Amino acid sequence: MEPRITLVTLGVRDLRRAVEFYHGGLGWPLSSASTTEVAFFRTSGVVLALYPRDLLAADANLPAGGSGFGGVTLAHNVASKAEADAAMARASAAGATTLKPAQDVFWGGYAGYFADPDGHVWEVAWNPHWPLAADGSIVLPE
Amino acid sequence: MEPRITLVTLGVRDLRRAVEFYHGGLGWPLSSASTTEVAFFRTSGVVLALYPRDLLAADANLPAGGSGFGGVTLAHNVASKAEADAAMARASAAGATTLKPAQDVFWGGYAGYFADPDGHVWEVAWNPHWPLAADGSIVLPE
Repeated sequence: MEPRITLVTLGVRDLRRAVEFYHGGLGWPLSSASTTEVAFFRTSGVVLALYPRDLLAADANLPAGGSGFGGVTLAHNVASKAEADAAMARASAAGATTLKPAQDVFWGGYAGYFADPDGHVWEVAWNPHWPLAADGSIVLPE
Repeated sequence: MEPRITLVTLGVRDLRRAVEFYHGGLGWPLSSASTTEVAFFRTSGVVLALYPRDLLAADANLPAGGSGFGGVTLAHNVASKAEADAAMARASAAGATTLKPAQDVFWGGYAGYFADPDGHVWEVAWNPHWPLAADGSIVLPE
């Protein structure tokens, strides 16, 4: 089984509001593969999808109920502390909740957290140990 | 703000068990960047990280409590129905819970779902409309 994540799908309570956050607010280009029922965004290597939460749960044969921390975070690495501050500010202006302002952290980087309008948790991080590739992805050592 | 997901971090209750599932069970190569406190896997474009759930919540300034559907799914796309069946079988043999056996689905593909030992939800999918790039990633239309 290949080590592979092809899409990350976020269950959302209001698809229009979620698209407005990622597309209108953060400025991420919406793929033409999107429909009125599902939204897709190209990112470096992995596709971000937005889909109604109840339909997503049903698709996985799971009850839709759930509360509290979902146990998953997504990271958005950037190339400098200034870029981290700018991304946190952009997200906040778009309606995100700042969970932790970007700050120096114990592993030597600079990072903050925000929650999108559905509570999905993003870390914005500058990591001096992990330079970014040209496409914005992290190249981990083998 | 660039459209970018650099890492997906799964909060886990037992890091050794989680590493055994992804590395020992699924056969995904563990990056040498891993330590006894965090595990990293290279996938096409995005890094999969495993980190203790309570520490992950604390890092994001969130209470660790939570139950039910977390609202996030990860997809593992493959190149054929046979590969989807094989991936579902491999995950099950590694200790995953099959949520939905791979089957023909309404959008014209073939897909199933499993939950990892911490309940994180994976979809295994063959999508005839989205061929895979050489590195296994999906190339979405713009």
